[in-house]
Amino acid sequence: MSTERIAYDAKLERILRIAAEVFADKGYHQASIRDISRATGVSLSGLYYYVESKEELLFRIQEHSFGTLLENLDRLLAGVEDPHRRLRLLIENHLRFFVANMKEMKVLSHEAESLSGEARQKVDAMKREYARILTGILEELSDREPAVDLRVATFSLFGMMNWIYNWYRPERDVPVDELADDIHRLFLTGLLPLEDEVPADAARAAPGTERPAIWGR
Amino acid sequence: MSTERIAYDAKLERILRIAAEVFADKGYHQASIRDISRATGVSLSGLYYYVESKEELLFRIQEHSFGTLLENLDRLLAGVEDPHRRLRLLIENHLRFFVANMKEMKVLSHEAESLSGEARQKVDAMKREYARILTGILEELSDREPAVDLRVATFSLFGMMNWIYNWYRPERDVPVDELADDIHRLFLTGLLPLEDEVPADAARAAPGTERPAIWGR
Repeated sequence: MSTERIAYDAKLERILRIAAEVFADKGYHQASIRDISRATGVSLSGLYYYVESKEELLFRIQEHSFGTLLENLDRLLAGVEDPHRRLRLLIENHLRFFVANMKEMKVLSHEAESLSGEARQKVDAMKREYARILTGILEELSDREPAVDLRVATFSLFGMMNWIYNWYRPERDVPVDELADDIHRLFLTGLLPLEDEVPADAARAAPGTERPAIWGR
Repeated sequence: MSTERIAYDAKLERILRIAAEVFADKGYHQASIRDISRATGVSLSGLYYYVESKEELLFRIQEHSFGTLLENLDRLLAGVEDPHRRLRLLIENHLRFFVANMKEMKVLSHEAESLSGEARQKVDAMKREYARILTGILEELSDREPAVDLRVATFSLFGMMNWIYNWYRPERDVPVDELADDIHRLFLTGLLPLEDEVPADAARAAPGTERPAIWGR
């Protein structure tokens, strides 16, 4: 890698990082390239040297985020066979990454549908690959007799982890290691100590509840 | 309640329902009152008879959604003391409600910060009330010796349930009753059958992993 290429990357990375903050704070659609120019101190023509459009900025943020997440995971999982350990590594990698990049997490979550065409396809393919890795680990873990539907399990774990941008505040909440411990424990063995039993009558408590549309339809 | 008041409500409810669809599909900030007028077939002056602004529409959607969710929950929980059963009822109420109102769920999740002032305060107060109810149930359930931090547990369950608008498709996934069963089971007793033990070396698998910011900062 030449010196020139490294300099290009560092400047582009800084632009993407600040653009993610602007998108997270102001919303992608309300933010303009001019806002990014102001926040980064890079002129409009300077920005257009790196990206063709605001949508390309959004694409590069998403691609760089999922790309880094997946690369880190690949590196961590290399040579690790035990599915328990693989799950733990995935949870830690995901939480550490997004606690350190919470603005990006919000942009990834809220602007998933703001991309279109090839850019959207590329990001969607990365997400599918990531979900595939997790589902694979859960299949091994549950030993072909899963207690629950594995699509529900996969996206329940993503939901537990991805929802943190709505509530987790590093300065007031448990540290990220403890967050990973708690989510890992909740997902694998649940809230209740092992000796507890769920009373049979707690299941399907309201089977007759009608479809509760809020609107009078 | 007079006949006139019922007619008012029905027409306003229809406007709110269609507005939620428009906001979910197009994004709140990109959608205009004119779009709502077109989608509802109600003239601009007709819309302004009911609401003062697009922000009021958003507020009314959020207030009506959380209000209905909380009212239904209150009714279901009335007289039910057992925390197992209370938790089950909360999960069923939440999932049935949002599976039936997935567009509203997306608007609630993505546009939480688009409200300001008193409207924002009112909606935030409803959310806090809802979280307080769940945390209270979890406190009782875990009998003052919670296996995990209860703020983590509370928002992990909300995360599992709220993430469904990103992946759950009623026509291809498990039915909503099974979804509630699975999330209930995952949250209370985890993915693994009770006899399974997590190997000790699966915990804290990567304690030395550095803070993985994606950007070169």
